[in-house]
Amino acid sequence: MRGLLLGAAALTLGITPAWAQAPAKKPVVIETEQALGIRYLYGSAEAASLSRQTYRALTAYALDKVNHRPTDAVVLAPNATVEAPGFDGCGRKKDLAVIFDADETLIWNIGGTRWLGEHGMTFDAKVWSWWEATGAQKILPVPGAVEAVNALKNAGIAVIVISNRDAASTDVPTGADHWKATAAALKAAGFGDFTQGENMFLRGTGPDRSNKDDRRRIVSEQYCVIAMAGDQLGDFSQLFNAEGLSPKDRQARAALPAFDALWGNGWFLLPNPLYGPWDKAKLEDIFDDAQKW
Amino acid sequence: MRGLLLGAAALTLGITPAWAQAPAKKPVVIETEQALGIRYLYGSAEAASLSRQTYRALTAYALDKVNHRPTDAVVLAPNATVEAPGFDGCGRKKDLAVIFDADETLIWNIGGTRWLGEHGMTFDAKVWSWWEATGAQKILPVPGAVEAVNALKNAGIAVIVISNRDAASTDVPTGADHWKATAAALKAAGFGDFTQGENMFLRGTGPDRSNKDDRRRIVSEQYCVIAMAGDQLGDFSQLFNAEGLSPKDRQARAALPAFDALWGNGWFLLPNPLYGPWDKAKLEDIFDDAQKW
Repeated sequence: MRGLLLGAAALTLGITPAWAQAPAKKPVVIETEQALGIRYLYGSAEAASLSRQTYRALTAYALDKVNHRPTDAVVLAPNATVEAPGFDGCGRKKDLAVIFDADETLIWNIGGTRWLGEHGMTFDAKVWSWWEATGAQKILPVPGAVEAVNALKNAGIAVIVISNRDAASTDVPTGADHWKATAAALKAAGFGDFTQGENMFLRGTGPDRSNKDDRRRIVSEQYCVIAMAGDQLGDFSQLFNAEGLSPKDRQARAALPAFDALWGNGWFLLPNPLYGPWDKAKLEDIFDDAQKW
Repeated sequence: MRGLLLGAAALTLGITPAWAQAPAKKPVVIETEQALGIRYLYGSAEAASLSRQTYRALTAYALDKVNHRPTDAVVLAPNATVEAPGFDGCGRKKDLAVIFDADETLIWNIGGTRWLGEHGMTFDAKVWSWWEATGAQKILPVPGAVEAVNALKNAGIAVIVISNRDAASTDVPTGADHWKATAAALKAAGFGDFTQGENMFLRGTGPDRSNKDDRRRIVSEQYCVIAMAGDQLGDFSQLFNAEGLSPKDRQARAALPAFDALWGNGWFLLPNPLYGPWDKAKLEDIFDDAQKW
């Protein structure tokens, strides 16, 4: 009773007594190289607002194309090279579509990233197969993505997913229906229904299975692709993943006028400092002696 | 001679002999928590293209305002609150201006970040004062920033810098002229001439010296501020840096309709996963049990 009275007095004074405070949360400990990037990507208002910024730009860009149908798609033509990058034509009758990557573009793999981090890992292929198979309820939509996808659909624009999650897996019980787990994740995050081979193209088999160019070709033959969104340059063209490109070569290639013209103007990037084709780069290939202090 | 002949034969065959290859670069070793973010921000074509995307959007947005002068500025009014965020008026006669943060917005602190990393640090106030004083030639412009600033200037839009680099310093010999070192850095990176108190407002003294609201007020009284760019939310309003905001509170605040409407639409964010007001966040305040896998 005395504690209660003292507590009431403390509340009157605007002081929360210790016993009335929320219980302390159990610490989450991640000490991998991703720890700082996790704080930025999943924990900062900066990264969240940057994602919203990208999705706002994509939405405005795509909706404008409904009334101003472009002649060219934003998918590179089959014979495109760095020197002569041409684009697919849009024709007159194809429906409009926007292609999205899934991981760290439409959805945050927040449950899987946490599990890996708490177990001292940043990636593991077997764990990832289980994550794809069972993590549907443990993800979050990237900030701004659901609003963007809804706006596109409301304008009659098809929403297509091309992801390097696996279509089928022999590592987990999902087997040939493995893609359905990713469809369930997209559905749970608020993006609606996806079917492999129709509006979703997950990774198949073969040595070049992570190359998305063939899947973009399939989509581009059916649709006028007016925009694409991703967190890695392979979400736009495999030309950026050519073997032997140094970090600086790759930066220079993405800044060539023909490609530079597309950033924020048909090609839309989301932030992802956790993993990507750059994550094993040697620092001596990034830092020039000219800026050594 | 034999080596040379063999070498010539090898060159004919398209094989570069070992003696003709570029000498191996000396390894750069950084093992701080910033190592992965450094690879992303300074080393990836993804982050570079994302910066270009932001600067393309800012440029298009600002140039459009030359012919469509807005009624409201994008600087919050002095009495603005989270519940009732109003904006400064633009009047009819004020010149147009865009406000930029400096570090990791206009310029990459690539030399200083490397030095700190190679010495096992992520930040040190004394080192940073020396870096500000002497690093002018060891920085790089953020990709897309020089082109954007030039486009704005060519359109008659004033370019203003508000940065929490120090205007004066007693730690380094630059003393009262310390701001000139930052002006020299901006000049070296290709942004032209800046003068403290005219078109550049570095941090002064006092307990609230990192709060940029007062400096935005000075600029907004003279100019119609049509856009702002930064890597941290404090570059837009101090409301986002209120004490006691949890990471989720801060994300929610930045997503309130009045603020959400501005991302990519007057307020423009650059990626920076290396440091910020989020970098000491507790992971248990970022990860929810609902997404625990």
